[in-house]
Amino acid sequence: MNSNKLATPMSLRKALTLIEEGHCTALELLEACLAQIEAREPEVGAWQHRLDAKTCLENYRNNQSFYEASLLKGLPIGIKDIIDTASMPTEMGSPIHKGRQPVDDASCVALLRQAGGIIIGKTVTTEFAYFKPGKTANPRDLKRTPGGSSSGSAAAVADGMVPAALGSQTAASVIRPAAYCGTVGYVGTRGEFSLRGIQPLGQSLDSLGLFSRQVEDIELLRAILLRQPEPMTTADALQPKRILLCRGDAAGEVEPDMADAIERAATTLRTQGVDVIEPDNSDWLGELVQHHGLIMAYEAARNLALESGQPDLLSPALQDLISTGLATPRADYLASLQAVADIRDTLAQRYPDVDAMLAPAAPGVAPEGHERTGAPHMSRPWQAMGLPVVTLPGLTDADNLPLGIQLIGQPHSDDDLLRIARWLEPLLS
Amino acid sequence: MNSNKLATPMSLRKALTLIEEGHCTALELLEACLAQIEAREPEVGAWQHRLDAKTCLENYRNNQSFYEASLLKGLPIGIKDIIDTASMPTEMGSPIHKGRQPVDDASCVALLRQAGGIIIGKTVTTEFAYFKPGKTANPRDLKRTPGGSSSGSAAAVADGMVPAALGSQTAASVIRPAAYCGTVGYVGTRGEFSLRGIQPLGQSLDSLGLFSRQVEDIELLRAILLRQPEPMTTADALQPKRILLCRGDAAGEVEPDMADAIERAATTLRTQGVDVIEPDNSDWLGELVQHHGLIMAYEAARNLALESGQPDLLSPALQDLISTGLATPRADYLASLQAVADIRDTLAQRYPDVDAMLAPAAPGVAPEGHERTGAPHMSRPWQAMGLPVVTLPGLTDADNLPLGIQLIGQPHSDDDLLRIARWLEPLLS
Repeated sequence: MNSNKLATPMSLRKALTLIEEGHCTALELLEACLAQIEAREPEVGAWQHRLDAKTCLENYRNNQSFYEASLLKGLPIGIKDIIDTASMPTEMGSPIHKGRQPVDDASCVALLRQAGGIIIGKTVTTEFAYFKPGKTANPRDLKRTPGGSSSGSAAAVADGMVPAALGSQTAASVIRPAAYCGTVGYVGTRGEFSLRGIQPLGQSLDSLGLFSRQVEDIELLRAILLRQPEPMTTADALQPKRILLCRGDAAGEVEPDMADAIERAATTLRTQGVDVIEPDNSDWLGELVQHHGLIMAYEAARNLALESGQPDLLSPALQDLISTGLATPRADYLASLQAVADIRDTLAQRYPDVDAMLAPAAPGVAPEGHERTGAPHMSRPWQAMGLPVVTLPGLTDADNLPLGIQLIGQPHSDDDLLRIARWLEPLLS
Repeated sequence: MNSNKLATPMSLRKALTLIEEGHCTALELLEACLAQIEAREPEVGAWQHRLDAKTCLENYRNNQSFYEASLLKGLPIGIKDIIDTASMPTEMGSPIHKGRQPVDDASCVALLRQAGGIIIGKTVTTEFAYFKPGKTANPRDLKRTPGGSSSGSAAAVADGMVPAALGSQTAASVIRPAAYCGTVGYVGTRGEFSLRGIQPLGQSLDSLGLFSRQVEDIELLRAILLRQPEPMTTADALQPKRILLCRGDAAGEVEPDMADAIERAATTLRTQGVDVIEPDNSDWLGELVQHHGLIMAYEAARNLALESGQPDLLSPALQDLISTGLATPRADYLASLQAVADIRDTLAQRYPDVDAMLAPAAPGVAPEGHERTGAPHMSRPWQAMGLPVVTLPGLTDADNLPLGIQLIGQPHSDDDLLRIARWLEPLLS
């Protein structure tokens, strides 16, 4: 089989099917991914650390029978560099932790290894998953940001270097880079997954996230991470009956191209017979953006206590976040937590028969430049409420740059939300 | 000053006042704690690792000006051995992690160090903060269990080895050992503190906990851990108007001595003019015990993914917990999470003007023997709901063994709950 063809961005499930049906071997796919990394990494810069090709292939051959019997067959996975790995440093995008070598794998890493995934490298993160970008470029247009903070994971999956990667989200760190790079992104309901070994930024906000080429891959990885007895999702795709359309302008700027993309998505839904409704009032979106920012600053100032003692090694943006958090009155923090809970309850009561919400996953296409990772306001509301979210690619602007949309579910509706996303996915292409 | 007198169990705040007023030096107090550890550790077995006296005193002298200018003046603190320390191993009570040396301090450890606490050692924990006891005996009666899982922290504080120690609670791991050893124990509202660097067992249940001799010490340590600008609590003690009395028998067995102690505590409150009311129905207590157990098993099986691959190195009890968790249908887990949230909301609505709840902190005095750490059912209901809790010592049985009671507050009412506990504290002696 032609390795150039294999190097095409490929779904994890499709790769497993090719292997199972004898069209190619896992080793050939692994080699294709390594070749793609070798060819593209100088331009894309997705990796903070990685196995060199020789070590990776030796590892595969030394454990071939384990991989052949495993679920993931030795296919390579990228891990955001705020997630601990015992096999490679975890530096969290900070000079403070240069060369930091954790003793244990995070739970999510341990589970992927046990399922036969090869941890091929650590992907670039912004500083402590906050603001300051790393070296990664957007593979869809190298002049543009890939988004952050899970910059390297999104870029690596978008560029076909790996079929899947782990990220994390406290504000917009999965949904936005997935939108900018044109991959599927998924953030679980808060509390859904073990966060053991993942550097926290805000304990009321942090979620594990996943990147892949297809929704079905997310479902497979999710089953592995939850240790579900039935790892392959066999449930049918689910056509929703009613969708709540949130155009997002109440949360902050929405560019014309994105407003158009959301309208196209809504039209697609209506054409399929889905009842697309809109809220009478969207002021709560803007309120959630404010509450999210306040909660994140307050909690980050406590979670980064260890590093606060070395301000010279923190970016100005992170110093600002910590200062803001320390200056935030506790009463304001508690009021924001309560306000978010109240809005979440009100929404659930007001729209009990809505199957999911639809919103822009970012304000528009990825901005030019690498000094910033784009605005987070399209994710803050849902992340504040701890809801499950899926970014779907497919829509683009006139230059073929991705305009990601997101579907948002009620807490712990992740399984149904992914079935809805799987139903909508082919209709957006 | 006589070092025997200094070795008497002493409140952190009282020690700081003695230093401030020139009655003794921090170094003398540190030496007294070291002497107490030296004298009693062979019998009590509170420590998994500790600084030897020479190293500890050298550290103090080398940094004396820092300590003198600090809030905690170099007083020694014990840290439960599931909380990461960069200066000592963190073994989590498991042979799997023998000699495991974390690279970073947990946030709580970093904050205590920055405030001038000396991390004098790691205290014994049960295996992964679950069931299998370590070597610790109860200093109030060496034949008895100190309770678990924060066994060493409770014993070290009760025995005057340190004025304060950190623990954690997923079921009853702070409140129960505090009750059995006769110390103050405190568990914060879930989400209150950064859990960075603390080994998780159940992400919907885990809380940071504190042990001390006096409630005012908890308030001081809490301010440090929250990076509050005013670390010394100056708010007056707070006499509650109305207390909800939960006798606890709906949660499981309550021994006659404890039933009597709770009645005495209620009488004390009534004598002070507090309106003590009782719920019409306490079936929800038993329901919460069941839901808590199910949630803990489900989540522990995911959080201990790394260790699941080495079952021979896990205790039978922990293997059972993991097996139970893996066999638990996801729908049951989600139903338990929802049921707990519903009960919490119902309680808040039914008793809006209750200032706190009063309940036994354990079924009775510490049981004899060291093979088990006592029953957890008196803590499971409140821990399931993520409520703040304080154990108060003072009441005893005929043999002078502690019969701890607990005060429970609404979410994020921690500050007021501690002021109420400070008011009740002297009335129980």
